[in-house]
Amino acid sequence: MFTGLSAFPLTPVTDDGIDEAAYERLVGRLAEAGVDSICALGSTGSYAYLDREERARAARLAVRGAGSVPVIVGVGALRTREVLGHVEDAQEAGAAAVLVPTMTYQPLTDDEVFGLYEEVTAQLSVPLIVYDNPGTTHVEFTDELHTRIARLPRVTSIKIPPGARDRIAGLRSLIPDTVNLGISGDAVAVEGLLAGCEVWYSVLGGLFPQTALALTRAATAGDAERARALTAELDPLWELYARYGSYRVMSAMAVELGLLAEPNLPRPVRPLGQEGREAVVRVLKTIDWLDDPANRSR
Amino acid sequence: MFTGLSAFPLTPVTDDGIDEAAYERLVGRLAEAGVDSICALGSTGSYAYLDREERARAARLAVRGAGSVPVIVGVGALRTREVLGHVEDAQEAGAAAVLVPTMTYQPLTDDEVFGLYEEVTAQLSVPLIVYDNPGTTHVEFTDELHTRIARLPRVTSIKIPPGARDRIAGLRSLIPDTVNLGISGDAVAVEGLLAGCEVWYSVLGGLFPQTALALTRAATAGDAERARALTAELDPLWELYARYGSYRVMSAMAVELGLLAEPNLPRPVRPLGQEGREAVVRVLKTIDWLDDPANRSR
Repeated sequence: MFTGLSAFPLTPVTDDGIDEAAYERLVGRLAEAGVDSICALGSTGSYAYLDREERARAARLAVRGAGSVPVIVGVGALRTREVLGHVEDAQEAGAAAVLVPTMTYQPLTDDEVFGLYEEVTAQLSVPLIVYDNPGTTHVEFTDELHTRIARLPRVTSIKIPPGARDRIAGLRSLIPDTVNLGISGDAVAVEGLLAGCEVWYSVLGGLFPQTALALTRAATAGDAERARALTAELDPLWELYARYGSYRVMSAMAVELGLLAEPNLPRPVRPLGQEGREAVVRVLKTIDWLDDPANRSR
Repeated sequence: MFTGLSAFPLTPVTDDGIDEAAYERLVGRLAEAGVDSICALGSTGSYAYLDREERARAARLAVRGAGSVPVIVGVGALRTREVLGHVEDAQEAGAAAVLVPTMTYQPLTDDEVFGLYEEVTAQLSVPLIVYDNPGTTHVEFTDELHTRIARLPRVTSIKIPPGARDRIAGLRSLIPDTVNLGISGDAVAVEGLLAGCEVWYSVLGGLFPQTALALTRAATAGDAERARALTAELDPLWELYARYGSYRVMSAMAVELGLLAEPNLPRPVRPLGQEGREAVVRVLKTIDWLDDPANRSR
């Protein structure tokens, strides 16, 4: 079962495919920092915009670059047939688990959502993490639906959205002991961990693994004061997320750090404009230890 | 410019691809009924679930089956690169126009939505219809955004959602005269046409073209009383739509009429269960002229 920090790297996307050298660099930094797992092809990893070949390639690169760190691979697609194809590719690439979002176009019934997980778990030989994020998939998982899905074989974790924070205790009492809860939404991650989530599915960790690890270790050790102090110092970053989306903010920060060329997001998504870019530069100056928490003087 | 009834047929989807014989039958019925245009690969036509090859094939079949009736082809995709590929295929297939939704995964800014249309229109040699349907794409088009897009070259129509009905007069005053408005949402189609929409982008018309034509002709001739009487008699059908989604209802009705085998929808979407199917059968009995309005005795 995955615990601690699961880091979600960007996948640098160009018109010709993936910038493979840059992607290997991003993944390598995470392994070197000692994150607990790496999730390739999450939402932050642009899975929804990549074709089957690009995704299979990214999965192989991530597994290679991660060394001994386990790699979770996102396999979401609108059609079950496609999801099953991505699952096959992820397993062949050596994924330690798959992350399964329910992408939607036609709004789905709960039975249809359950049916997707039923069909995927029937073909799976690695653990499955349920991806619950209404902000991108527009699926609202009730406690009942989560509970039905959590009882399927190989389900090992549920990635819950920031809005589900107050449901942690209730959900925990409903789902099997073999399934853990993981928080997403970086701004509330510390509170999620303190409330009983065992893993942080982290956008921040995909680019600033040391800082995300510092927050994770403090919270999971029960040092609420330190964990809350650290996350409070990141408020200017959470404000950028709220304004521009963490996806565009991380993309711009990776460019500022010299890790990625631009553009690196799939159109129609565009890089931040001048105003957003200036705000990113200001935050990097304000939180001067963001890329290396050992430099934090306070 | 497209006016009158634009009929949106289902695309019968199987695990192996498209049921081509059934699709040709569906399209042929529409041409025979004399609809004003046929829109292949709309939401009802499952475009979002089909790969490039399946879509190109469906576009070619539709153009062939439509005879002299112009065929609009839906070309939506999450990534601009894919949209441009579908546009190329649609044009090669002989599409008279393309219908361009803004599919989203990461929520898009207005500039990003505009950028998609800018990029598509720059490569286009046929008219473009803007697809506005927050229920499936989760994009909210403001009047300002519509106006910006409507000024792009080759934009010829805006397909507005049922909720935009009270914006028709305002939008009409903002967009160029060369662009018309079309209503979608079958239950409010008559009111949309009476309020100034020049075309009905019609799910109903994709399976019951004669009935949709009767409503369209009454409304566009200004016979509000007859148009409203006809649509009121279809209330039991609109109630089914609201409960199960027009997509699943049309799929089940096509099976009841002997036009499609089952399943014909792409999983994870499932056919209606027993309760829904029984409701469909009841409505087909209640509205006994649905498939042939000449049988309407009242």
